[in-house]
Amino acid sequence: MTTFDLRAWSGERLERVERALENWVGVEAPAGLGEAMRYAVLDGGKRLRPLLVLAASEAVGGNGQAAVRAACAVELIHAYSLVHDDMPCMDNDVLRRGKPTVHVKYGEAGALLAGDALQALAFELLTPADDGVPEAMQARLCRLLAHAAGSAGMAGGQAIDLASVGVKLTEDQLRQMHRLKTGALLQGSVLMGAACGEVSAAEYAALGDYGAAIGLAFQVVDDILDVTADSATLGKTAGKDAEQDKPTYVSILGLERSRAYAQALYDQALAALDASGLPDTRALRALAGMVVDRVN
Amino acid sequence: MTTFDLRAWSGERLERVERALENWVGVEAPAGLGEAMRYAVLDGGKRLRPLLVLAASEAVGGNGQAAVRAACAVELIHAYSLVHDDMPCMDNDVLRRGKPTVHVKYGEAGALLAGDALQALAFELLTPADDGVPEAMQARLCRLLAHAAGSAGMAGGQAIDLASVGVKLTEDQLRQMHRLKTGALLQGSVLMGAACGEVSAAEYAALGDYGAAIGLAFQVVDDILDVTADSATLGKTAGKDAEQDKPTYVSILGLERSRAYAQALYDQALAALDASGLPDTRALRALAGMVVDRVN
Repeated sequence: MTTFDLRAWSGERLERVERALENWVGVEAPAGLGEAMRYAVLDGGKRLRPLLVLAASEAVGGNGQAAVRAACAVELIHAYSLVHDDMPCMDNDVLRRGKPTVHVKYGEAGALLAGDALQALAFELLTPADDGVPEAMQARLCRLLAHAAGSAGMAGGQAIDLASVGVKLTEDQLRQMHRLKTGALLQGSVLMGAACGEVSAAEYAALGDYGAAIGLAFQVVDDILDVTADSATLGKTAGKDAEQDKPTYVSILGLERSRAYAQALYDQALAALDASGLPDTRALRALAGMVVDRVN
Repeated sequence: MTTFDLRAWSGERLERVERALENWVGVEAPAGLGEAMRYAVLDGGKRLRPLLVLAASEAVGGNGQAAVRAACAVELIHAYSLVHDDMPCMDNDVLRRGKPTVHVKYGEAGALLAGDALQALAFELLTPADDGVPEAMQARLCRLLAHAAGSAGMAGGQAIDLASVGVKLTEDQLRQMHRLKTGALLQGSVLMGAACGEVSAAEYAALGDYGAAIGLAFQVVDDILDVTADSATLGKTAGKDAEQDKPTYVSILGLERSRAYAQALYDQALAALDASGLPDTRALRALAGMVVDRVN
């Protein structure tokens, strides 16, 4: 296997995703709303979820147009969740990606509506009337995204998170919360990429295992960074977890065991890719590395 | 044509919808979230949108299982919009359908998340993995719902509404706001019902005209009721529009001309049904009457 240049691979894909988001987000919206939607989405973030969608789709030889739409849709769900999560009634955060949060800039009502509209737009992007994406594929993509975003996924995890402030969770409970809160959408990204092609049940299951492992790894690393990085590097307020008395992997396992756990999850992710039997999973491997080695 | 008993027709359909909502809403959610979702949806509301879906589907001989799912999905979008709309940063309403609003009962964060999860659930209901609903139909239903709910529909209308407090709108601007804010989802309900069957372009267009007319009529009547009904009858706070200095049909056209306008829209709705050429549109006709003659 030749060496894989993740930076070059990502660069090309990110350009495609940014251009698509630029064309699709907020363009049909009344002026104020469209501006808030674009502010929330454009020019920010690592775009990990879109990259996972595209990498998984390429690994299975998926439909390129479907994959770009799925990549953008997943990012819109992620972006809306950040907008709502930052609001005063939730985390009350004023800084995100180094910029004022949406409600600081557009008011609480504006942030609420922008988030709501972004969620709807995600499903609109997945269901074009004429774009060469088979309708059966559109339906499967909507099914995966709705499940990952909803009460048995991201929204459910946020509800558990909300109920857990100041509560002592066991490691199992913490894992279950994060499986939903962050893991469901990360795993969903991988599965949506897979759904852009034709995969066997075994390949699909292996990609699901990969997605579950990196989903959890992402959160473990997030918890580590919250105590080891500063706000400038993170682009958001560091040290919030401890300040809000939120249970984290670091608070339960300690720093060293958290690091070891992240590494073990990385190994699991790679083992799942090997088990998939798919011929070229280099981008997915490299993204798993990025999840674990990131500094913000 | 025999006389049509709307009460009997609705009764049967409402029972089916209520049972479906009971089975589907909040059951997969962590306890607190599921409870708030169910509180927001169950045991309340006239279910006008679900009835429109079912009536349109029956008029075109649609897939019954798809129609029940579409009926519930539309109601979830409506319910989530009420939950978010009632929040302190929006209308700050404490009473809805005669009960404390969701944020009063479950807190603002709980209401925010319940609304978010209800929107996701709407798309989940439309995309069952195994329920005899063809995937191409699922995709079309998602497309219609996402468009009706999003920034070119309901959320867009709410953004215009938000920006219009204390602003003098022309009748055209007011109509445009309501076309999006209330009309898009009501029209979307009719079109989703149509999408549960096979319709010609002419039939689809006629049903769209019907939906647009009753969508606007609904809002005109809403504005009339806000000044003529009391809170107990409405199940929500009456007189809020004037108090908040919101532009309404009554404030622009006056009461009598608003009533005449509602009647003209009713006539338009019926003319569209005649033009559709569909053999049995009695339920749709009766629902148009209900929209115009309602007292709450």
